[in-house]
Amino acid sequence: MKIDENYMRRALELAKGGWGRTNPNPLVGAVIVRDGEIIAEGCHEKLGGAHAEVAAFRNAKGEVGGGTLYVNLEPCSHYGRTPPCAEAIIKAGIRKVVIAMEDPNPKVCGRGISRLRNAGIETVVGVLEKEARRLNEIFIKYVTEKKPFVIMKTAMTLDGKIASFAGDSRWISGESSREQVHIIRDRVSAIMVGINTVLTDNPSLTTRLGYKSGNDPVRIIVDSKGKIPVDSRVINSGSAAGVILATTSAIGGEKEKILTDRGVRIFKLDGAQGHVDLSRLMEELHREEMDSVLLEGGGGLNAAALNSEIVDKVMVFIAPKIIGGRDAKTPVEGEGIQFMKDALELRDISISRFDEDILIEGYVKGVSCLQGS
Amino acid sequence: MKIDENYMRRALELAKGGWGRTNPNPLVGAVIVRDGEIIAEGCHEKLGGAHAEVAAFRNAKGEVGGGTLYVNLEPCSHYGRTPPCAEAIIKAGIRKVVIAMEDPNPKVCGRGISRLRNAGIETVVGVLEKEARRLNEIFIKYVTEKKPFVIMKTAMTLDGKIASFAGDSRWISGESSREQVHIIRDRVSAIMVGINTVLTDNPSLTTRLGYKSGNDPVRIIVDSKGKIPVDSRVINSGSAAGVILATTSAIGGEKEKILTDRGVRIFKLDGAQGHVDLSRLMEELHREEMDSVLLEGGGGLNAAALNSEIVDKVMVFIAPKIIGGRDAKTPVEGEGIQFMKDALELRDISISRFDEDILIEGYVKGVSCLQGS
Repeated sequence: MKIDENYMRRALELAKGGWGRTNPNPLVGAVIVRDGEIIAEGCHEKLGGAHAEVAAFRNAKGEVGGGTLYVNLEPCSHYGRTPPCAEAIIKAGIRKVVIAMEDPNPKVCGRGISRLRNAGIETVVGVLEKEARRLNEIFIKYVTEKKPFVIMKTAMTLDGKIASFAGDSRWISGESSREQVHIIRDRVSAIMVGINTVLTDNPSLTTRLGYKSGNDPVRIIVDSKGKIPVDSRVINSGSAAGVILATTSAIGGEKEKILTDRGVRIFKLDGAQGHVDLSRLMEELHREEMDSVLLEGGGGLNAAALNSEIVDKVMVFIAPKIIGGRDAKTPVEGEGIQFMKDALELRDISISRFDEDILIEGYVKGVSCLQGS
Repeated sequence: MKIDENYMRRALELAKGGWGRTNPNPLVGAVIVRDGEIIAEGCHEKLGGAHAEVAAFRNAKGEVGGGTLYVNLEPCSHYGRTPPCAEAIIKAGIRKVVIAMEDPNPKVCGRGISRLRNAGIETVVGVLEKEARRLNEIFIKYVTEKKPFVIMKTAMTLDGKIASFAGDSRWISGESSREQVHIIRDRVSAIMVGINTVLTDNPSLTTRLGYKSGNDPVRIIVDSKGKIPVDSRVINSGSAAGVILATTSAIGGEKEKILTDRGVRIFKLDGAQGHVDLSRLMEELHREEMDSVLLEGGGGLNAAALNSEIVDKVMVFIAPKIIGGRDAKTPVEGEGIQFMKDALELRDISISRFDEDILIEGYVKGVSCLQGS
């Protein structure tokens, strides 16, 4: 069992090789062991590329027949972008398959496992399942709820401010925290901010990794009244990643035309009280196969996102400094909840350090990624 | 060296036996070792009681002559509340003394060590000095700066709120965090809140430990206009610990008389713009031999305390929940600092968990307790 976990841990590590390149597919790694030795490793590197099992077969340093395959997700049994892996496993003569978790897609869940078992292959399911679900939390949300996984990220001082009373926010968090945010930008399909962030900070919202070129996420600006300046950096950054203006029918026809001419896609999603309907926005993004959104909103948009129940995960970078100010902005504003007993509780809290900063992460609800099948 | 550290660690542990009972004296523990065996242990248990070294002599299970004494603070050489320990050590025939740190009191610093060395005793100084300085951070501040050590404690949600928009704050932090606060109340000389906390929460500000009876700290209410209701719980709690109303000359004569009749001591400390002069308040507390203050203020008092530079240590309990609200109160308000680059940075950050809550602690300035002599 301990041995199974060790090989599965290796498969999970390999899976991370596809981070930010497989969306909306899952992260999958595979290891083949024969006579107590790893003879093949593989990973699903990018969307449309070989699945991890097939990649492992290709990379094998010897005969895989009679070996044991470790893979963090149930092998597929259907013809999708690639032929089914279950068939390839059977054909290769694998004797035993160890799987971390079933495919969360209700349409295919269990079919790959049945196919293997029907072919007489010993199949074990559930090794490091919790870790596997955490790794593929984006994929699980995407296929089970048909909405992107939303990560609300904020950076605040130890006294709970995301900017000084004068609006200054550069920089709250340290370099190491900001690098981490760019690593996340590289992995997600889209980034989302509110119009006030564009008006105040004029960010480009691209991915700047330093050590390698990153993927820019699609930039989404929530701007119910269409106030975005046509010369704002996010529109004119030269990034190949598109810009979506999530707005309402309040946007002016002429403004709409100028923006469209500059390549901005306009989503009109009328919600309550003249706001953008964020739930419908998430449905639209799912339709476009975007599986994840990094929400870097101000207090207003964050409150709206939490109220719309679109947020899955919260990441709060806390800088050990104090800025004070009764009028300084905080990470979640809106009207707020009246009683402490009704506060939104986060689960599965984890804490890490980025130099001086402290990152607190937690999950908003259901935590479907951590529930076993 | 490693052996010295182990015995010193034991002395530091023993020292904690005096927590909250020795103020404004330091926490001191002593261990006597002979032939590789601990033959005596002692601790300064309470103000006016035996010093740690003398307590160890009393508790000795054999002949201490020829032994090595480990003590976390330089033995005293002057006649104070008890006779000088240096003389007792010489008289007992101790062969070697290992000391964690010199006495921080500039008037006596080094004299005990000189006395021992002049008597021909091998004396080593600086073993686990950092830990010893941290343990006696209150004492160090008290004797070197002639002001009490001030701990600003707050409890907030992960979105930086100390109450909901409606003022509800019960409870932000969990039971385990609240217990920890009572442990600190038991150890400090005084607790300080602002008048708004009295008006909103009507707390008694006593120590409730559960497992043993605690020491109530002196309760200090900062109330520049003398608005405190005479029937408020803090005045009528029946605690033997006194109440100080830190106010200004704006308080009414009649109100003053009623409060004085109820045993409240009135400190009139006119500061700028009708506020209480918190720096002078600290000087007054030092004069009364109070070595430590737990500040459990709201955002206004916390901001004033930080601006007055009276705060030494910050403790922020963070509950992993979100309450939201643009009008919800935050831990430090006031006008605030304009630019992020000028924010007050905290040093020596440490993180701990109290069930679901996260405690972040840090030091505001100088961190004199951590600087070697």
